[in-house]
Amino acid sequence: MPQLRIALAQVNPTVGDLAGNAATVVEWTRKAVEAGAHLVVFPEMVLTGYPVEDLAMRASFGHASRAALDSLAVALAEAGCGDIPVWAGYLDLDDVGPRNAAAVLHGGTVVARQYKHHLPNFGVFDERRYFVPGQNLDIVKVRGLEIGMAICEDIWQEGGPIAGLGRAGVDLVVSPNASPYERDKDDIRLPLVARRAREAGAPLVYVNQVGGQDDLVFDGDSMVVGVDGTLLARAPQFVEHLMVIDMDIPGGATRTDAEVVDTFTVRRVTVSEDPVPGYEPQHSPGVAEPLPDEAEVWSALVTGLRDYAQKNGFRSVVMGLSGGIDSAVCAALSVDALGADAVYGVSMPSVYSSDHSRSDAADLAERTGVHYSEQPIAGMVEQFVGQLGLTGLAEENVQARCRGVTLMGLSNQHGHLVLATGNKTELAVGYSTIYGDAVGGFAPIKDVPKTLVWELAKWRNAEAEKRGEVPPIPENSIVKPPSAELRPGQMDSDSLPDYELLDAVLDDYIEGDRGYDDLIKAGFDPELIDRVLRMVDRAEYKRRQYPPGTKISFKAFGRDRRLPITSAWREGS
Amino acid sequence: MPQLRIALAQVNPTVGDLAGNAATVVEWTRKAVEAGAHLVVFPEMVLTGYPVEDLAMRASFGHASRAALDSLAVALAEAGCGDIPVWAGYLDLDDVGPRNAAAVLHGGTVVARQYKHHLPNFGVFDERRYFVPGQNLDIVKVRGLEIGMAICEDIWQEGGPIAGLGRAGVDLVVSPNASPYERDKDDIRLPLVARRAREAGAPLVYVNQVGGQDDLVFDGDSMVVGVDGTLLARAPQFVEHLMVIDMDIPGGATRTDAEVVDTFTVRRVTVSEDPVPGYEPQHSPGVAEPLPDEAEVWSALVTGLRDYAQKNGFRSVVMGLSGGIDSAVCAALSVDALGADAVYGVSMPSVYSSDHSRSDAADLAERTGVHYSEQPIAGMVEQFVGQLGLTGLAEENVQARCRGVTLMGLSNQHGHLVLATGNKTELAVGYSTIYGDAVGGFAPIKDVPKTLVWELAKWRNAEAEKRGEVPPIPENSIVKPPSAELRPGQMDSDSLPDYELLDAVLDDYIEGDRGYDDLIKAGFDPELIDRVLRMVDRAEYKRRQYPPGTKISFKAFGRDRRLPITSAWREGS
Repeated sequence: MPQLRIALAQVNPTVGDLAGNAATVVEWTRKAVEAGAHLVVFPEMVLTGYPVEDLAMRASFGHASRAALDSLAVALAEAGCGDIPVWAGYLDLDDVGPRNAAAVLHGGTVVARQYKHHLPNFGVFDERRYFVPGQNLDIVKVRGLEIGMAICEDIWQEGGPIAGLGRAGVDLVVSPNASPYERDKDDIRLPLVARRAREAGAPLVYVNQVGGQDDLVFDGDSMVVGVDGTLLARAPQFVEHLMVIDMDIPGGATRTDAEVVDTFTVRRVTVSEDPVPGYEPQHSPGVAEPLPDEAEVWSALVTGLRDYAQKNGFRSVVMGLSGGIDSAVCAALSVDALGADAVYGVSMPSVYSSDHSRSDAADLAERTGVHYSEQPIAGMVEQFVGQLGLTGLAEENVQARCRGVTLMGLSNQHGHLVLATGNKTELAVGYSTIYGDAVGGFAPIKDVPKTLVWELAKWRNAEAEKRGEVPPIPENSIVKPPSAELRPGQMDSDSLPDYELLDAVLDDYIEGDRGYDDLIKAGFDPELIDRVLRMVDRAEYKRRQYPPGTKISFKAFGRDRRLPITSAWREGS
Repeated sequence: MPQLRIALAQVNPTVGDLAGNAATVVEWTRKAVEAGAHLVVFPEMVLTGYPVEDLAMRASFGHASRAALDSLAVALAEAGCGDIPVWAGYLDLDDVGPRNAAAVLHGGTVVARQYKHHLPNFGVFDERRYFVPGQNLDIVKVRGLEIGMAICEDIWQEGGPIAGLGRAGVDLVVSPNASPYERDKDDIRLPLVARRAREAGAPLVYVNQVGGQDDLVFDGDSMVVGVDGTLLARAPQFVEHLMVIDMDIPGGATRTDAEVVDTFTVRRVTVSEDPVPGYEPQHSPGVAEPLPDEAEVWSALVTGLRDYAQKNGFRSVVMGLSGGIDSAVCAALSVDALGADAVYGVSMPSVYSSDHSRSDAADLAERTGVHYSEQPIAGMVEQFVGQLGLTGLAEENVQARCRGVTLMGLSNQHGHLVLATGNKTELAVGYSTIYGDAVGGFAPIKDVPKTLVWELAKWRNAEAEKRGEVPPIPENSIVKPPSAELRPGQMDSDSLPDYELLDAVLDDYIEGDRGYDDLIKAGFDPELIDRVLRMVDRAEYKRRQYPPGTKISFKAFGRDRRLPITSAWREGS
């Protein structure tokens, strides 16, 4: 059976960094060559990064991307990588418009280029806004084997380009992807990729990017399946990784020479005819186990935060430490992402702050080794409250806002990125102060429901214990009842339902897009539903003003949900 | 020639307010009946409001909209309007998915419903995200005349549904629209509507909504053109208006009975066969002149602000008055939108504030009659600067942020909507303080370049003089050089190029999506381009955190431009 050594380059590009991303492709191709690979596959739009959003509509960027692709082909040849065919995604721009494209580079030139056929336009994707779909299938012969390609969404379509490749006849399909992480998505990908391999009648090589880009994080999870859908190899999540695999390719696909198959125009090009001489397989990378849920979410949050900070040029982060669970988890994430020395925690007690708010914050700092300081806000608050005559909610909010101004002052003075430490549950119901605790450049746990925040804290502490390290999060921050401490004796439970119940309703309402009647049928109390839904529907403006944060759910605020601010619609009313 | 009296109901719905919008349809249909009209046409999705954004994906909302449509048909009959056919847009939801739909109501029931064919997915439109396209053309016979319909984008397509209607044979086309305002758009609509009337071989009745919805404002500009494209009637912009017109309908279209025309399924239904008996025409509404540019922009800004405040339940607005041109124009807009008694201006001098900042603000208040107070911020600023040891930019920003906290405190205490008074030029280059002058629920001049702010001020003052009123904006606010007054002697010109030049570059870069090389060719200085483009590219995060504000341009920040925050792409570099 024909043999082939294939390299999957699971890399982390930066949007817009054409030179840097091209250098990444050269560097990782060189590694593939050193490993003796016969071909290497990079993710979707690796040269431009993904998603480029409205940069796709700027002609100068499209031209620059095309030029960078041509230069990359030359650079690869100059780096001694001219003999290995390289599949790499990029932004094309032709007479018809911008294209989500992938090219095959070989011998210093672009030998093939295919445009994505199916443009996703839901959830985080707006590709019909940006790209014109393609109609070609570019099949490249390498070592006598016919290799077709399918870009990301094209493998999610039953009877789409993959079926076309099957009918055209290919021995192998390679698929460059930029598939964002969300919880349990890896459970969906494998059966999908397996189905498509069977549909194509050929093994399938699935390469996904890793790393954070604004609120998206990509988990990698690159894999190879056999023609029968068997999983042959799987790369670890959330790390850059070169996976090299020696494969036996069944080959012998019934190749048609028709120029049109189904609705596709088939273009064939030959890079090399001679089969690889038989050799002893060396690379059998095996199947990396998907991470357990908490570990996977934690890795996503760490990756999202690290890349947001580093790709935006920040070397340090600053956040308020309240002694509560949210800021404790954000601090622990920051330490894992950037190291304790890059993390600045500030306790900002007011006259209503409890003693434990300070002691728990100090305890966290000691456990994690982050920089710690105290900036009492009583003097600032008094100025506003006294001069403006503020009472009630207005007085509560001023406290949160003096903390926001304090953190921004420290950020401006010292160059730290401010982290907003709010969770998804608060954001959903509007339980936060705009320009107060919502201040920040990034919100690490923006998409994490409160109940999951607790689970993550317990999991992270347990991991530390397993490793013989000090658990980062003070036990008291985990067990004490949550409070915003903006007035004497205030508890979250004064304003909000029990968090277990609240998160259950929110999950149905937001993730499930279920309405009032469905929630009633699901057995929730009508008054509870009414109360929660009203809070959610009223909070859209606040949510829009919140900083970006890593998306881990199917429907993350800001990224996937776009509700009118001015809306009189009330569920159940 | 057959006669017909047609009513165009140019109304202002509220998104999500099914009951309120239905009541509006009944009320305006009754007016149409009182005027003796034979049919009445409402805007696109009048029953739900437009745009509904992700509400389209909530099944409960889709079901509620369908149910509200059925109830509306009954309510119309009960109100004595059962005999007049009513075209009204709504959100449908069938087995295939959500639909942008328009129905014909008559005799207490829904007699026809058509789904929009062409779903715009650019600029402010994301309709491919939300709706499934239709394939039917529903033609309704009224008084013996065949009346086809085309929803909004369907009339923007050459050879689309309108051509299908032409081939199917219709005597009249009615078109419900939700076409947002942008500068000079009325110059595009008329020739378009005229072309489509000729393509259909029938007169065309174009009905557009009015009013503000989040950052969009709809200008109305409803019109009727004859079969040869002649403009017969045009409604005034930015006001609710019932335009009733007596028309001679050429009629006698060659009607095919084919059930399929081109790719469309044609469904015909008869409401009434008997022609209208000959009568003496009474209604010849004439052609409302489009407003001159400044008046049109001013009306758009007033409408957008008024509806944002009122539809969100605010009775009053509060803003900082700096003595500068931006806050002066925002105050004048607020007075025109809501009345002087609903407007609260606060002067918030710091130690760096000039005498004229206070005297010009007080002068504005006196001219306009808005509530005026002074809240010096020196004490607050000193607390932060002293305690945190802030210098330079950090110290400058604290001043802006103490003003933000002050306005939010007054808002929380008294229930005012805070207005952010920044202009588009500042927003483009990031010349603002996040959580400082960017604080607010709405930003009236967010999409107005600085040079246009001055023009509008002069225009508004001139209008006042024409009417024998006191010009609202102090001459000194117009003529003095702009300054943020955050440090001694600071001038905008220290940080920014001359505004005339800056706005020229920004217009090419943002509205025109031109790149570095194009700007060089346009004759701008390379250093200037480089400086401006770097400022713009760096400011995406700040722009995202800015409040919504009325869109008046082709490309408004926040609404039309979606750039990655993490992006290494630099134009010209």
